[in-house]
Amino acid sequence: MIPVPRKPTRLVSAGRVPIGGASPIAVQSMVKLPMTDARAVLAQIEELAQQGCELCRLAVPDHAALEVFGWVAKRSPLPLVADVHFDYRLALGALRAGAAKLRVNPGNLGGDGPLREVARAVATEGVPIRVGVNMGSLEPDIAAVYGYSGEAMALSAMRQVERLEELGVDAIVISAKAHGVPVTVDAYRRLARSTPWPLHLGVTEAGPGTPGLVKSAVGIGLLLAEGIGDTIRVSLSAPARTEVEAAYAILASLELRRRGPELVSCPTCGRCQFDLLSLVGEVEQRLSSIREPLVVAVMGCAVNGPGEARRADVGIAGAGPDRAVLFAQGKVVRSIPAAAAADELMAEVARIRAGLSGTGDCGPERDDERPEGHHEQQQ
Amino acid sequence: MIPVPRKPTRLVSAGRVPIGGASPIAVQSMVKLPMTDARAVLAQIEELAQQGCELCRLAVPDHAALEVFGWVAKRSPLPLVADVHFDYRLALGALRAGAAKLRVNPGNLGGDGPLREVARAVATEGVPIRVGVNMGSLEPDIAAVYGYSGEAMALSAMRQVERLEELGVDAIVISAKAHGVPVTVDAYRRLARSTPWPLHLGVTEAGPGTPGLVKSAVGIGLLLAEGIGDTIRVSLSAPARTEVEAAYAILASLELRRRGPELVSCPTCGRCQFDLLSLVGEVEQRLSSIREPLVVAVMGCAVNGPGEARRADVGIAGAGPDRAVLFAQGKVVRSIPAAAAADELMAEVARIRAGLSGTGDCGPERDDERPEGHHEQQQ
Repeated sequence: MIPVPRKPTRLVSAGRVPIGGASPIAVQSMVKLPMTDARAVLAQIEELAQQGCELCRLAVPDHAALEVFGWVAKRSPLPLVADVHFDYRLALGALRAGAAKLRVNPGNLGGDGPLREVARAVATEGVPIRVGVNMGSLEPDIAAVYGYSGEAMALSAMRQVERLEELGVDAIVISAKAHGVPVTVDAYRRLARSTPWPLHLGVTEAGPGTPGLVKSAVGIGLLLAEGIGDTIRVSLSAPARTEVEAAYAILASLELRRRGPELVSCPTCGRCQFDLLSLVGEVEQRLSSIREPLVVAVMGCAVNGPGEARRADVGIAGAGPDRAVLFAQGKVVRSIPAAAAADELMAEVARIRAGLSGTGDCGPERDDERPEGHHEQQQ
Repeated sequence: MIPVPRKPTRLVSAGRVPIGGASPIAVQSMVKLPMTDARAVLAQIEELAQQGCELCRLAVPDHAALEVFGWVAKRSPLPLVADVHFDYRLALGALRAGAAKLRVNPGNLGGDGPLREVARAVATEGVPIRVGVNMGSLEPDIAAVYGYSGEAMALSAMRQVERLEELGVDAIVISAKAHGVPVTVDAYRRLARSTPWPLHLGVTEAGPGTPGLVKSAVGIGLLLAEGIGDTIRVSLSAPARTEVEAAYAILASLELRRRGPELVSCPTCGRCQFDLLSLVGEVEQRLSSIREPLVVAVMGCAVNGPGEARRADVGIAGAGPDRAVLFAQGKVVRSIPAAAAADELMAEVARIRAGLSGTGDCGPERDDERPEGHHEQQQ
């Protein structure tokens, strides 16, 4: 089975968002603004929520940021994760201000006394802690033996988790993100074998553009395909909305969750007799506001088009210089003028959506393959 | 080991490009223009070659296209693959015109007689055939039993391969691309267990934008991580150069091959006190013409930056509103004005390149991890 069934993990909750157990793989992102303009921060969270982000992290580097955090937490449409380093009082403050989850590195909060206070506070508030290890926060004695490796990350994380467990923390999420895919995958595979706590997946500092997106997709995708991972955050040097779009694309690629249509479209070649890339661009744009998990195809030629896009709910394929065919479920429905292809396709999409919204069902033959898509649609 | 060692396959050659055996995973793309303007086709191939494409496919839908193919083949900087359907005379013509490889669906060339002629011709010319199965070209009796599945694709491909072997073809490459990742991965895993012939990987009709790139990265990346795959083509509804960029990004993400620098950069957050995304964009642009496999980092804050980007050859990290630090190999070198960050970084990159080009070596401590990067650099 691809992906393999999810590895069972303990269920924890960040506000109303369940993480682990049998819950859907939760999508996270992070606000990318200085923590000075509370309204701007809230606006970015609202934009992320609209895109399907389910949990949003905010850095809380100082007490001024903590005030912004508190103001935003009262108004946020999403549960907030407070990211705190070095000063345990900021962690305590964020909990009082409404943090639904705390992301800390237990080794840098100021020693055992402060860590004990934070542990007591999260237990009281019923808030989970994410232990987030990266190459900058390995336990020095572990790094000395295991180097900067996946093994060192997993061992460092497990030691920090054990400290928290000893202090009575009973809701933990773990991450171990490196910027290299092999090291990251190695770390998470080890964690998945070592702990029942849910895992937060990511490739850190993946960078900008195509390479950043590809590293994230390969690293996170590989782990999800093995049944590892309960929540994901794609870390890109790009707007936060791009991270959320990428997260859903990764989940959709493995048919774990789908938000919106799947656009199947051919790369075009010397057989294609019209401007396929422009048509694909137009269809992509016109589908972008739709949330139903339809499969829509745009193919260059009618010879292979309907056959290759057999599972598409609806599609168009070029058929000579001026004509196209409209097809559904791998069968040609009728011939249409090429110039009207986008309009005809969208009209068919609208008809299908009208049917869908009446029944809330996209056909039993696909439910088994897209359980999360179906789930999304029912929300 | 991630990725696991490559599965051994037979070595075949498309012109000067070896596929399979111990050869590097070859990067392919396809011309996306009508086969009418030979000069435009040649120009696109030249652009792809500059980007690192190693093998380029052209559709040959008719005899006019065959003439263009012949003209281009005489001048092409890359070995060409002729993509032929339905008419075996086009396949024979493409071989005479200089095709370095033939991509066919043996089931649609017009029966046994024509297939026998094509088999004789490729054997004479010493040219490999790629058997390319997709959902539009399943063997009907196999589809009837196994449905539109990875199993049906693998079985269809193997039947076609056996036909060619019976006809004496001794150089075969196999592909089985679906537009869904799970089906594609299933098909290739079955092929890898069934045949010693090299495999050409791809997710077909992956579509445009982020979803297309992600599907390709997850599908191809997952297989490469398992040691499966000898050559790859990323099929995107996007310019062909984007396909080549994506192919190298996938190979680099698994440290199989690298072309140019790796840019490690943080996603920015509320702790960052400067416009990180603009700086990353500028550095990305200025690195784009460099081919050495340097690791360059751009980090938001100095606290975690150098530690997390420990393996970077050189990097910068923000250090307050007006300052940054320059670091190398995880250690801070010196403090610099933030406004000069990009210039200082690129000056350091230039110094490293000058050293690199003198020795042709990027340091023994990384050779074991980036054998292909090293290989690229020596070319």
